[in-house]
Amino acid sequence: MNKRTIELSGHIIDSLVLPKTMDLIMDRGGDFDILEFDIGKRKSDISRAKMLVSADSPDQLNIILDELSRLGASISEIKEVELTSSIKDKVAPEGFYSTSNHPTHVLYKNNWRTVEDIEMDCTICIDEENNKVSCKPLGEIKAGDKIVVGREGIKVTPPQRTRGKKQLFEFMNSDVSSEKPLMNLIREIASEMKEIKSKGGRIGVVGGPAIVHTGSGKYLASLIKEGFIDVLMAGNALATHDIESDIFGTSLGIDIQTGNIVSHGHTHHMRAINKINKSGSIKNAVEDGTLNSGIMYECIKNNVPFILAGSIRDDGPLPDVITNTIKSQELMRQQAQDLDMVLMIATMLHSIAMGNLLPSRVKSICVDINPSTVTKLSDRGSAQVVGIVTDIGTFLPLLYEALHMK
Amino acid sequence: MNKRTIELSGHIIDSLVLPKTMDLIMDRGGDFDILEFDIGKRKSDISRAKMLVSADSPDQLNIILDELSRLGASISEIKEVELTSSIKDKVAPEGFYSTSNHPTHVLYKNNWRTVEDIEMDCTICIDEENNKVSCKPLGEIKAGDKIVVGREGIKVTPPQRTRGKKQLFEFMNSDVSSEKPLMNLIREIASEMKEIKSKGGRIGVVGGPAIVHTGSGKYLASLIKEGFIDVLMAGNALATHDIESDIFGTSLGIDIQTGNIVSHGHTHHMRAINKINKSGSIKNAVEDGTLNSGIMYECIKNNVPFILAGSIRDDGPLPDVITNTIKSQELMRQQAQDLDMVLMIATMLHSIAMGNLLPSRVKSICVDINPSTVTKLSDRGSAQVVGIVTDIGTFLPLLYEALHMK
Amino acid sequence: MNKRTIELSGHIIDSLVLPKTMDLIMDRGGDFDILEFDIGKRKSDISRAKMLVSADSPDQLNIILDELSRLGASISEIKEVELTSSIKDKVAPEGFYSTSNHPTHVLYKNNWRTVEDIEMDCTICIDEENNKVSCKPLGEIKAGDKIVVGREGIKVTPPQRTRGKKQLFEFMNSDVSSEKPLMNLIREIASEMKEIKSKGGRIGVVGGPAIVHTGSGKYLASLIKEGFIDVLMAGNALATHDIESDIFGTSLGIDIQTGNIVSHGHTHHMRAINKINKSGSIKNAVEDGTLNSGIMYECIKNNVPFILAGSIRDDGPLPDVITNTIKSQELMRQQAQDLDMVLMIATMLHSIAMGNLLPSRVKSICVDINPSTVTKLSDRGSAQVVGIVTDIGTFLPLLYEALHMK
Amino acid sequence: MNKRTIELSGHIIDSLVLPKTMDLIMDRGGDFDILEFDIGKRKSDISRAKMLVSADSPDQLNIILDELSRLGASISEIKEVELTSSIKDKVAPEGFYSTSNHPTHVLYKNNWRTVEDIEMDCTICIDEENNKVSCKPLGEIKAGDKIVVGREGIKVTPPQRTRGKKQLFEFMNSDVSSEKPLMNLIREIASEMKEIKSKGGRIGVVGGPAIVHTGSGKYLASLIKEGFIDVLMAGNALATHDIESDIFGTSLGIDIQTGNIVSHGHTHHMRAINKINKSGSIKNAVEDGTLNSGIMYECIKNNVPFILAGSIRDDGPLPDVITNTIKSQELMRQQAQDLDMVLMIATMLHSIAMGNLLPSRVKSICVDINPSTVTKLSDRGSAQVVGIVTDIGTFLPLLYEALHMK
Repeated sequence: MNKRTIELSGHIIDSLVLPKTMDLIMDRGGDFDILEFDIGKRKSDISRAKMLVSADSPDQLNIILDELSRLGASISEIKEVELTSSIKDKVAPEGFYSTSNHPTHVLYKNNWRTVEDIEMDCTICIDEENNKVSCKPLGEIKAGDKIVVGREGIKVTPPQRTRGKKQLFEFMNSDVSSEKPLMNLIREIASEMKEIKSKGGRIGVVGGPAIVHTGSGKYLASLIKEGFIDVLMAGNALATHDIESDIFGTSLGIDIQTGNIVSHGHTHHMRAINKINKSGSIKNAVEDGTLNSGIMYECIKNNVPFILAGSIRDDGPLPDVITNTIKSQELMRQQAQDLDMVLMIATMLHSIAMGNLLPSRVKSICVDINPSTVTKLSDRGSAQVVGIVTDIGTFLPLLYEALHMK
Repeated sequence: MNKRTIELSGHIIDSLVLPKTMDLIMDRGGDFDILEFDIGKRKSDISRAKMLVSADSPDQLNIILDELSRLGASISEIKEVELTSSIKDKVAPEGFYSTSNHPTHVLYKNNWRTVEDIEMDCTICIDEENNKVSCKPLGEIKAGDKIVVGREGIKVTPPQRTRGKKQLFEFMNSDVSSEKPLMNLIREIASEMKEIKSKGGRIGVVGGPAIVHTGSGKYLASLIKEGFIDVLMAGNALATHDIESDIFGTSLGIDIQTGNIVSHGHTHHMRAINKINKSGSIKNAVEDGTLNSGIMYECIKNNVPFILAGSIRDDGPLPDVITNTIKSQELMRQQAQDLDMVLMIATMLHSIAMGNLLPSRVKSICVDINPSTVTKLSDRGSAQVVGIVTDIGTFLPLLYEALHMK
Repeated sequence: MNKRTIELSGHIIDSLVLPKTMDLIMDRGGDFDILEFDIGKRKSDISRAKMLVSADSPDQLNIILDELSRLGASISEIKEVELTSSIKDKVAPEGFYSTSNHPTHVLYKNNWRTVEDIEMDCTICIDEENNKVSCKPLGEIKAGDKIVVGREGIKVTPPQRTRGKKQLFEFMNSDVSSEKPLMNLIREIASEMKEIKSKGGRIGVVGGPAIVHTGSGKYLASLIKEGFIDVLMAGNALATHDIESDIFGTSLGIDIQTGNIVSHGHTHHMRAINKINKSGSIKNAVEDGTLNSGIMYECIKNNVPFILAGSIRDDGPLPDVITNTIKSQELMRQQAQDLDMVLMIATMLHSIAMGNLLPSRVKSICVDINPSTVTKLSDRGSAQVVGIVTDIGTFLPLLYEALHMK
Repeated sequence: MNKRTIELSGHIIDSLVLPKTMDLIMDRGGDFDILEFDIGKRKSDISRAKMLVSADSPDQLNIILDELSRLGASISEIKEVELTSSIKDKVAPEGFYSTSNHPTHVLYKNNWRTVEDIEMDCTICIDEENNKVSCKPLGEIKAGDKIVVGREGIKVTPPQRTRGKKQLFEFMNSDVSSEKPLMNLIREIASEMKEIKSKGGRIGVVGGPAIVHTGSGKYLASLIKEGFIDVLMAGNALATHDIESDIFGTSLGIDIQTGNIVSHGHTHHMRAINKINKSGSIKNAVEDGTLNSGIMYECIKNNVPFILAGSIRDDGPLPDVITNTIKSQELMRQQAQDLDMVLMIATMLHSIAMGNLLPSRVKSICVDINPSTVTKLSDRGSAQVVGIVTDIGTFLPLLYEALHMK
């Protein structure tokens, strides 16, 4: 008898939870009967559904339930979460529950406990000693850790569509067309940023070197100086070309002012790295007068922390670059939990990395001229990201302007 | 003896005429010997080369010479152009010379005559009666027309690289990267536009509906009103959505102000067309108060001519749309010969059509967020076009701003 | 009292009709109460909903109802359709109903009548004399025609998701990722094609010149020869380069066999057109031995009709090209109503044109290496199209192979 | 007197060395006079030029000479290379010579010495003790290292165009159009691969996870099994999805066989990583029977080394992934020097990383459906790469087929 009753509640029709649930069951070859259904008649009412899910085999049923739990369906007869100890470092027990990036609760010792530091594709670990329920990446599991297995006693709450006109961050599906009016979108982002800052919230930027190549570095530098940005996450390239543009006036050998293209003028970025190596660090370079303007300069001057996560394509790299990818992830992970908004600008690698770490509640915007960056982010599960296909060289000046309009 | 001596002159090394000539001969399986070579030692000096081209067969030699003539190579022993009469309407004699879009001269009755209305992929027709040497598309040939065949007595002059820093319109190769500083490029275009207008020159715009979708219609309307644009070439879609945005405030059913997306709000453009049909024409609609602002409105009010060239994807179409493609081409062809600059914005079909018609001396800019539009334009031979990959929704506001900076 | 009761029925939750209805009302600033709701408890059961829609003004209510009718919502208190006579050729009465591409019925003289030749963005015209209810494009309206206005008595039936695993043509949303396994998709298309042909169905191809440029022309030619294709819709370019490749072995001057690129070898296509002009038509060229193989050759030899719809970017064009865009649309429209499947291959212009004309029941596949072609098709309302982002140069050989596998 | 005489020799016109030299001088605001010019009259002859380069300042002259040296221009009055000792680890002396990826020689102690392990954007270090002249990345410099500064005594030899039809790997400019015949290109690559293997050469693959997503993993696995591939360079994603597809039959939760898409089926790759963590390594997993087929399996079984270079977007990662980016680069660098051909398939990060490390003599092919990957590779200086824009899901099957044709 491969059947199980599940429950759904909330704006489950218009937020697509119910249709997606039915879709998923059918696509996975399962079947369902609606046992009870109570539709919210008015705007403020919520709907409730009870469904009997059936499948051909216990395995199939488990797979279906596993995926349903990510959509927000909870198993009806509520039991406590099931825990199994890890037998080896970095190894979760078979059947471990793999998290989504939505707010998640587990029923543990008769209490619905919030899973802290929620992040997609992790395990849920319960530390009984410290009375802590939290997300844990596979790589951080230690032998003996108590890991949630199965799908009993788990409740996921995906974001719901508000009843009323959709807001910018409710699109829920990355929308990558370039044929939409952009100015209004930018004004909405600017107003959201101002509101977050007025409430003491935190905004991060994840940026690629095209910010500098396109001549928009100065706008990002100003945003940092003016306190809009609380953390910068980037790679060696953004920092190097930013420094190159301060020292040599070029980016990848292209003159930032005149835009004149020099066929193989590729040595400036190497000379820039060499100068920072000589100073010992970006901070030292600011202090000893080597570096006098730009994005990194403003980070140092205004105590805005930065994480320069290394990659295998780095030249140099700069002494401040973190060459261990796990270490970089850890630092980005800490930031991710603490942010209210992230602007991901012109970097596929760092955007996807950040997208993997972000809880779905963080307002996220991905800006790139290449539609495939946005598509990939969404294909990899970061459905909450608002994608904008536009030119970085004009997006940042216009955002800056919108932030300074009365 | 499949050999022939050719001559080249000008800045043939740095303008790549000589390297391309050698390249082409080798790629086509021919061979060459340099007979004479006189290199320009100083900036102002020009270079001269005489080469003996050889091939395995007369046919191969002819094909090579045919292509060389487009690069600017002229056959040494100068003979008069050879003429053959067409035997049937729309049919050129075998071996007809197919034009490039560069300035071309033919040696006829002992004079080097300029070929008028030069345009790529046409024939050269000599009208002895009216003493006229001009380009003629295949479709316009009449039985009895005297058409140039072979490649004797033809001299092509491709644009040359100036000795000194390259100017915007000397790039000669469409450059489609989106990682270049854009603001400076826009300033150069603006300053070129102002210079052309100050000299009484003519500027055309070839535009697609994304101009309206992205909310930039008002900037184009202002440019028309302010006298920057002398002719508008577009299709049914640009005009329809421009009119829709005046009447309904939407474009393809999307609110231009708020950018709110309405899933299937596709009826507005039909209602807009219906209203213009009722008025009888766009001009009538302006006069009877149906249409009160926008791109088409400004064209009517300021007597800026427009060509709305129809296509098979048109809804409606508007009464002003020319549904015969040959007729549209003829009208565009007349404009093409008379322009100093063309801005091609966000339309692949109309840009390629215009690109086919433009002499290489017309300064041409193609702006699209999709790199493949620019690539296709260049693949089809419009090598003089400066390609810019950017967002239309920001390009036009920034261009407008640049045109109004002191 | 701007309120109206609407009804929905079918698999309205999993086919997204109900969620989209709620979404649309809220986005348009309206409100709703659920009056009755009867959910289909089992797979085979259908669901029914009755909702009270309210809005701030009668206009707003009308706009909402107008869009809802396209989703399949019908107004509860069933009245007959309302008709108004056109006062002028090409002009529909204000408030005309604009069609979707889904099966549509109108209540007329107490009967639910099917709207014939359904096509998006048209009017519904009732010809009382001939007892005919059919779709009519704006441009074909004659003064005196009885046109449906308002939204009473209209029932739209969008395709429903089958209960069970989704089939290829149920995706309903163009899916443009290039990171999906392609071979299986091709096998499904091949098997669908074989089934259609076994039932005497009709398959059309809408194709661009890249079919020839990529060396895949011979596969399309074989499909035509073998009876898989019932009609070819293309432009001057496909036919010209197909003919060029037969006569000269090149396409746009590139050798089809060796792929060697010749920088400016652009005269062959002009010479090809000239030869057909000499013969007088493609048919004549086949008969007089000018044309001996290829796509157009097989069309002539196998009596497969072709529509060569002209565009402003055509060189020549060939004598068989229809230079009037309205005439081209009419011919394509006739084909559209009569097809069971359409393959749209590597042509944005012709694909969007065809997409506009197709009823949603026709199985449609759009194949292009450029994701934006597929995105645009879908943005313009052809939601039923399955989009495949892949290389034409490999798609057609693989489809051919799949059609010949046992 | 900011003047200096330079010399060029070889097929300097048709290989574009001379035009590029003139271009660069003019674009950088310098000037030149041709002092001597001796053109190769016949195919086998080489040309020689002596030019006097002048500039406004010594600095400008130095910049120009620096860049000219990368094009193959050598300074006339031959002096020995100038060496300066590094004063600090990772810091090169000011004015250090930054390498290109072309074969480079330095005049040292009266001998023209080949610079070993040539790689772009490095310094040249002379180890007098061990009599070794080699490339050194900035990060590996030790205090006291003798580093080449200035541009005396350096000779660079860029690849030359052969006189005759251009070969595949002579394109020299990445060519990213998707409208070229592909089958022939694939046949050329296959024949090149067979020739390299017949001579005992080495072929590397740099691959992204799309190889597995598109269902082409089995073809790469077969190529490894059959001995065509000597080293695999990839990241965590390719290995994880390859292992996922062996264990679960899916890739990113999509069924490889049926192509059915599962909306949020993202847990399989985590479970796959967990299983390998349990085994301890990929090798162990093959030995203990956890892993039984696929790309990684064949690498283990056939002793083909693999480098899994970590990145910040990695889930897990697998125990075999190198999480230190500098260490990954070192391992890739060793391979780069030892290869005859590299296929870079569907990975921007790893392709650009590899492109940075490759000497220009290595035959390199970059295959991606996204044109921007190829464009970026070329923008960053890897001009020798042949770019192919096509679908991975069809490229690998077709390459496999071509390798097995008689």
